[in-house]
Amino acid sequence: MSKKYVYFFANGKADGNAKMKDILGGKGANLAEMTNIGVPVPPGFTISAEVCDYYYKHDRTYPEGLKDEVNNAMKRLEEVTGKKFGDVESPLLVSVRSGAAISMPGMMDTILNLGLNDETVKGLEKATNNLRFAYDAYRRFIQMFGDVVLKIPHDEFEEILDEAKKKKGVKLDTELDADDLKEIVEEYKKLYRKHGKEFPQDPWDQLWKAIDAVFGSWMNERAIKYREIHGIKEGDLLGTAVNIVAMVFGNMGEDSGTGVAFTRNPSTGEKKYYGEFLPNAQGEDVVAGIRTPLPLDELRNRMPDVYEQLVQVFETLEKHYKDMQDVEFTIEKKKLYLLQTRTGKRTAQAAVRIAVDMVNEGIITKEEAVMRVTPEQVEQLLHPTFDPAERAKAKVIAKGLPASPGAATGRVFFDPKTAEEEAQNAPVLLVRPETSPEDIGGMAAAQGILTARGGMTSHAAVVARGMGKPCVVGCEEIGIDEEAKLFRVGDVEVKEGEWVSIDGSTGEVMLGKIPTIVPRGLEGPIATLLQWADEIRKLGVRANADIPRDAEAARNFGAEGIGLCRTEHMFFEKDRIPVVRRMIVAKTVEQRQKALDELLPMQKEDFKGLFRVMKGYPVTIRLLDPPLHEFLPQEDEQIKEVAEQMGISFEELKQIVEDLKEFNPMLGHRGCRLAITYPEIAVMQTKAIIGAAIELKKEENIEVIPEIMIPLVGHINEIRYLKQFIKETADKMIEESGVDLKYTIGTMIEVPRAAITADEIAKEAEFFSFGTNDLTQMTFGFSRDDAGKFLKEYVEKEILEVDPFRILDRTGVGKLVEMGTKLGRSTRPNLKVGICGEHGGEPSSIEFCHMVGLDYVSCSPYRVPVARLAAAQAAVKHG
Amino acid sequence: MSKKYVYFFANGKADGNAKMKDILGGKGANLAEMTNIGVPVPPGFTISAEVCDYYYKHDRTYPEGLKDEVNNAMKRLEEVTGKKFGDVESPLLVSVRSGAAISMPGMMDTILNLGLNDETVKGLEKATNNLRFAYDAYRRFIQMFGDVVLKIPHDEFEEILDEAKKKKGVKLDTELDADDLKEIVEEYKKLYRKHGKEFPQDPWDQLWKAIDAVFGSWMNERAIKYREIHGIKEGDLLGTAVNIVAMVFGNMGEDSGTGVAFTRNPSTGEKKYYGEFLPNAQGEDVVAGIRTPLPLDELRNRMPDVYEQLVQVFETLEKHYKDMQDVEFTIEKKKLYLLQTRTGKRTAQAAVRIAVDMVNEGIITKEEAVMRVTPEQVEQLLHPTFDPAERAKAKVIAKGLPASPGAATGRVFFDPKTAEEEAQNAPVLLVRPETSPEDIGGMAAAQGILTARGGMTSHAAVVARGMGKPCVVGCEEIGIDEEAKLFRVGDVEVKEGEWVSIDGSTGEVMLGKIPTIVPRGLEGPIATLLQWADEIRKLGVRANADIPRDAEAARNFGAEGIGLCRTEHMFFEKDRIPVVRRMIVAKTVEQRQKALDELLPMQKEDFKGLFRVMKGYPVTIRLLDPPLHEFLPQEDEQIKEVAEQMGISFEELKQIVEDLKEFNPMLGHRGCRLAITYPEIAVMQTKAIIGAAIELKKEENIEVIPEIMIPLVGHINEIRYLKQFIKETADKMIEESGVDLKYTIGTMIEVPRAAITADEIAKEAEFFSFGTNDLTQMTFGFSRDDAGKFLKEYVEKEILEVDPFRILDRTGVGKLVEMGTKLGRSTRPNLKVGICGEHGGEPSSIEFCHMVGLDYVSCSPYRVPVARLAAAQAAVKHG
Repeated sequence: MSKKYVYFFANGKADGNAKMKDILGGKGANLAEMTNIGVPVPPGFTISAEVCDYYYKHDRTYPEGLKDEVNNAMKRLEEVTGKKFGDVESPLLVSVRSGAAISMPGMMDTILNLGLNDETVKGLEKATNNLRFAYDAYRRFIQMFGDVVLKIPHDEFEEILDEAKKKKGVKLDTELDADDLKEIVEEYKKLYRKHGKEFPQDPWDQLWKAIDAVFGSWMNERAIKYREIHGIKEGDLLGTAVNIVAMVFGNMGEDSGTGVAFTRNPSTGEKKYYGEFLPNAQGEDVVAGIRTPLPLDELRNRMPDVYEQLVQVFETLEKHYKDMQDVEFTIEKKKLYLLQTRTGKRTAQAAVRIAVDMVNEGIITKEEAVMRVTPEQVEQLLHPTFDPAERAKAKVIAKGLPASPGAATGRVFFDPKTAEEEAQNAPVLLVRPETSPEDIGGMAAAQGILTARGGMTSHAAVVARGMGKPCVVGCEEIGIDEEAKLFRVGDVEVKEGEWVSIDGSTGEVMLGKIPTIVPRGLEGPIATLLQWADEIRKLGVRANADIPRDAEAARNFGAEGIGLCRTEHMFFEKDRIPVVRRMIVAKTVEQRQKALDELLPMQKEDFKGLFRVMKGYPVTIRLLDPPLHEFLPQEDEQIKEVAEQMGISFEELKQIVEDLKEFNPMLGHRGCRLAITYPEIAVMQTKAIIGAAIELKKEENIEVIPEIMIPLVGHINEIRYLKQFIKETADKMIEESGVDLKYTIGTMIEVPRAAITADEIAKEAEFFSFGTNDLTQMTFGFSRDDAGKFLKEYVEKEILEVDPFRILDRTGVGKLVEMGTKLGRSTRPNLKVGICGEHGGEPSSIEFCHMVGLDYVSCSPYRVPVARLAAAQAAVKHG
Repeated sequence: MSKKYVYFFANGKADGNAKMKDILGGKGANLAEMTNIGVPVPPGFTISAEVCDYYYKHDRTYPEGLKDEVNNAMKRLEEVTGKKFGDVESPLLVSVRSGAAISMPGMMDTILNLGLNDETVKGLEKATNNLRFAYDAYRRFIQMFGDVVLKIPHDEFEEILDEAKKKKGVKLDTELDADDLKEIVEEYKKLYRKHGKEFPQDPWDQLWKAIDAVFGSWMNERAIKYREIHGIKEGDLLGTAVNIVAMVFGNMGEDSGTGVAFTRNPSTGEKKYYGEFLPNAQGEDVVAGIRTPLPLDELRNRMPDVYEQLVQVFETLEKHYKDMQDVEFTIEKKKLYLLQTRTGKRTAQAAVRIAVDMVNEGIITKEEAVMRVTPEQVEQLLHPTFDPAERAKAKVIAKGLPASPGAATGRVFFDPKTAEEEAQNAPVLLVRPETSPEDIGGMAAAQGILTARGGMTSHAAVVARGMGKPCVVGCEEIGIDEEAKLFRVGDVEVKEGEWVSIDGSTGEVMLGKIPTIVPRGLEGPIATLLQWADEIRKLGVRANADIPRDAEAARNFGAEGIGLCRTEHMFFEKDRIPVVRRMIVAKTVEQRQKALDELLPMQKEDFKGLFRVMKGYPVTIRLLDPPLHEFLPQEDEQIKEVAEQMGISFEELKQIVEDLKEFNPMLGHRGCRLAITYPEIAVMQTKAIIGAAIELKKEENIEVIPEIMIPLVGHINEIRYLKQFIKETADKMIEESGVDLKYTIGTMIEVPRAAITADEIAKEAEFFSFGTNDLTQMTFGFSRDDAGKFLKEYVEKEILEVDPFRILDRTGVGKLVEMGTKLGRSTRPNLKVGICGEHGGEPSSIEFCHMVGLDYVSCSPYRVPVARLAAAQAAVKHG
């Protein structure tokens, strides 16, 4: 028995169904499904995509039996329509369309009215009683067939048409009468001959040529390109199916028409039908845009019965597909036909609202609702966006990496200090070759940040995302001249103070001021959806926050604690940096201790602020991490200034700066290595953390769960050594205070050796937090400050699928995360394991964290909602 | 039944034997062993170290039954000696000594003549017929007992002795007569009383106090410190044993004496007895150095029978212990007694000679011989060393890290160019803050290299070891003033041209010219021993060599191929660097191609040179690895100069230099990342490699086995991408040439991700070579250029046992090596796996490579002999 290749549908019964997209394509499967559920669909049949697969594997030939199956299907189609293919009295006409499992719009044009020829056109005239209509259909068919099937240039058909209109002195096609169209038909035939071809009068010949053309189109340049762009690989799809459907006409008078509709508002999500309708028209007329379509409501006025039927169809479809549908329909003489249905595209706002509404309507479950919204859509809801109309007019002058999403507009300033001052007058945009921790003030004050260098995890990118601030980095096209206070892109010169806008979601840089729309935050449907996500997810979600303001934002967005508080950010504050510098240049332990004593109360206050906001939630505090040189000025000019402030000589400070310079600071004297050299720093920080916790408990009766995190541990002895100092200091303070306070000591896993020897390290560490930024750097051997140059190329040359600093590399870095987690828990079964790198807020990475059994993810406050959703989706997907 | 704690030995029969060192200690076990094999030993017994263990675990008490066992042993000792402990007529005297399983010289003094008191001293007088001797023995015993057992300060005894001599107006102890000594005995007793103590007249009391003292000494400060220094951990040893042996006296006249001897020459290894002899003397007299001992030959003249007996003992001991022995003996009235035997310490030269001779003499196997020589000894044989006499006089002014062993002396120069010129006149020593690839000429010309910065694997250290040149790095005490052309250490100022010497084995820097002794290379016994090593080892040994001269050295030292040829070293040659620079500044592919075309014939000649030397052996060639900025000048002055030479503007070159600067060059645009950006470089290098091989085959009929190695691969797609270019180029050339040439393409595993995903990478790589320098850097997150600062501290604070750049970190980096090897072979069972990092020449690391099943190690040419030995030792140890 030969395989089944043709799937028929008519009169409420179809061979196929919606689950058969792989072989019937999206369009064919849904036509079958609609037929089955009683939605009015013109009868027809689908040739399976398996035929397409066979076609290319067998030198563009068809499998045995296909011809017979098609013949049979056509015979059945004649039966159900009561017409006959090629019949002069009552000709059966069909449309022929492609349709793959994944929608590939524009891959191939549609052929309508197939079956017409010099004889059948007369039958059509009789059936419609409209000579002009019949010849117009014939004229259109010949043109489409020539263009799509025989590749006769479309323009040449248009020329003939234009010529005819010119001759007659009219402007619109509709002004041509039947005779004109008859003449054009003859001219078209001549055009065929001019190209060495003949318009086939035999409908069967037409049909097979059209089928050949559809299968052939699967490998045309446009289709290949489309699949390439959309990451559809060979083997993902069998090929395209071919849908052959009896023609229905919306252009048979005022009781006919055509339209498109959404079952809900795709922009707002409102539960209200939304669509357009054009009376006495065919689909292509809507597209052509010659006439303005009417709103769907108008249909209710004109054909209330049809409208009622359409509404019934909407209800049926939504209940059946459990999602908002995007449909095409045609009304032929008051008879409604659905030509297509598919899940409707929607805005972020609509996606959330529809998902929540559908749960409330009992259509879908909470789990399904959570899967309906993408993390990107949640993100879109949280960042300001440009007013689309204004944006369309803007001039894009350059494009960098989209480092932190959102729209920002402001006057450009190149110096962080000036930017900070100017921000008090009007919005500013900070433009820098790259940023450093000293620029933090300017960054905080700016609407957005634009840098010429750096990658997705450069300082600018990380800080901006932490601040929820739009940021474009690595925009190498902008040549910054800091001295002249301007940047240049080609001929364009942008001077300090001029307005520029950046789109952190696309990386685009635009001239001028573009108004933005502010998100409404976590209110309404999104808040509901994320509550459901919280019920479903197994991963905890914390935030990376260093100051109370960020911590508050994190709480508002639903964070359940702080997964990473970077204490060094506190060291950069204006009133602290001089003390920090005195600590660094100290020549004796005593001098250093004196500076540390001054820092202690300030740090304690910092922690009290954080703990107060995070009442009852755990707070992970990382001890000082960056190399000391980051706290000192680097340029002679600044060194001179700072030396003067500190009362030491330029030469002395310069020497210290030189001594602290490193070839590879990333792999240098930082992290726990600092604390091992200067345990007194760790002791001071412990005093500040524990002191803050004790005081809050005593003074305000606030519970605090401090988790002291030692960074950059690669060997068990590092944590063992420092733990002594920390424990001794903390335990003594707690004992003396009489307060009941629990704290834990753990480590970041960010050096590959830590992951590899995690069984050892877990003997000392009470928790792990994967610092996947550094872990990615060291596992790949990529410096994130330098890799921008070649990473772009790597992605272009398909050496890497994605930037591993953006999406966790599961095969390499991920293997270390998994190994570290397993090894750590082999020693300490209850080891708490989290992630606090940038990946903690990235959906695919979050999914991976769920899969390897981490306890929580921690990300910047503005990514907390995204993380909540992604964590829930991972739980739904993987259980 | 109670445990046995006391082991008796006498008259050819002992309870213990040499294998029982753990409980009897080295001394006790060997006394038992000698007794068993018929060597004359005074009778005695050993109290097991288990008692020491018990003693400390039970609050300094003894196990039940010990007292009885000791009493019994003393009774047996009385029986075999025919004397009685505490007897006035014929008193039994004993010595009491400590002795642990590992020799701990100086842990405790010996107590001799125990058993003497006011009565027994008279018995001794009778037995020896020598009043003075008897009281001298008594005087010595009281002093020793007071000092060692009762902790009465040694000086106070000496004061009494000095006072007596002063009173009598004599200078030497021997000038005191019996009456003087009697008086001193009384004074000593008073001294005891002054310290609130009483000299115990009861010999049993003396004995137990002495035993207490020995066990007590196990935990004295000196012993604890000793164990700490020598890395002996708690639990390694049970404790010390106590040896109680009947006294024999070498000071009973001219027919008595005492001596020490080696069964072979410990300095040269010559098979000739070697020792010293002092007639009429006790052991301590030899140590005191009052009289000059006679050579052993003199014994033959004076007491030929005793000499003959001693020679017999030597033969017996060597045959029995199968190694050269270091013995102590005493002759009491022509009767020979061996008091101790142990394996003799020896020089490197002697070690090798003895091992080889003993194989030839049929005493030991080749495997045993290979285990007898340490890799350090082989190393010592290969590097020049200072003349020890001259060295002793030299003034050490500073100490750095011992980066490359050997002695070097020369006039200091700070500028590599000047050093190179001056080297033509007289030896020079290159002194630099640190070295860079541009200094290579000066380094090659210098006798040795001294740097102020950098660690064990800094550029200077690596290159120096590669050259087999002494080198001291990281000598931070030397303040170099390059402008003034001098360096300062404290008050000492060393100007350009002044003589300085460095010891690359200790890191010491000395003033002045110290003559050196040149090694004889691989001739004589060492050559034989290493041939045996070759028969035994399973690991292949290759060398890292970039030029024919080094390759020749490698071959002479026994390398079986080149495991790493760094092609960039060829790029630094004077005639190439301008072309390389033109390649770098090229703005178009065409310009770059032009420069590459110029480089091609030069590289081809380089490879021909290497291949010619390595005829028939595999040669692994690594494609260009370092970041491009290393080839460009960095200082403005030099940039100006080079720009002029290149005919481009200063600004242009400066800009290029700036653009190439990286924050972390270690993790930057280098290795295969370069070739991915500029595949034309890899293509040029392939052409040079394959072209050289083809030409050599055609012109000289030399077989070449090129292995093309792609550096820094971290992702399979990197090697996949480059392999296309390389294979296409190579295969085309081979086909066109008509020559039958096989080549392979593999990768270095030096990025952690490569080891973790080795199963993937092995799909493309035909061989792996672990680049453990970089792998260590990235696995630990230590920049070797910067880590010097804190690594020293890490070792001091015992966070790391050793510098992981020197000895492969088995737990972390080693785990990656093992994982990479296993994963790689899971994909490609015949994958050839080697190591080419600095660890390839380090014995412990080589052992690890053997254990994880690597195919070969590759190291600098001068370490090849060490590697051959270490590989053989690993094979003997682990099979």
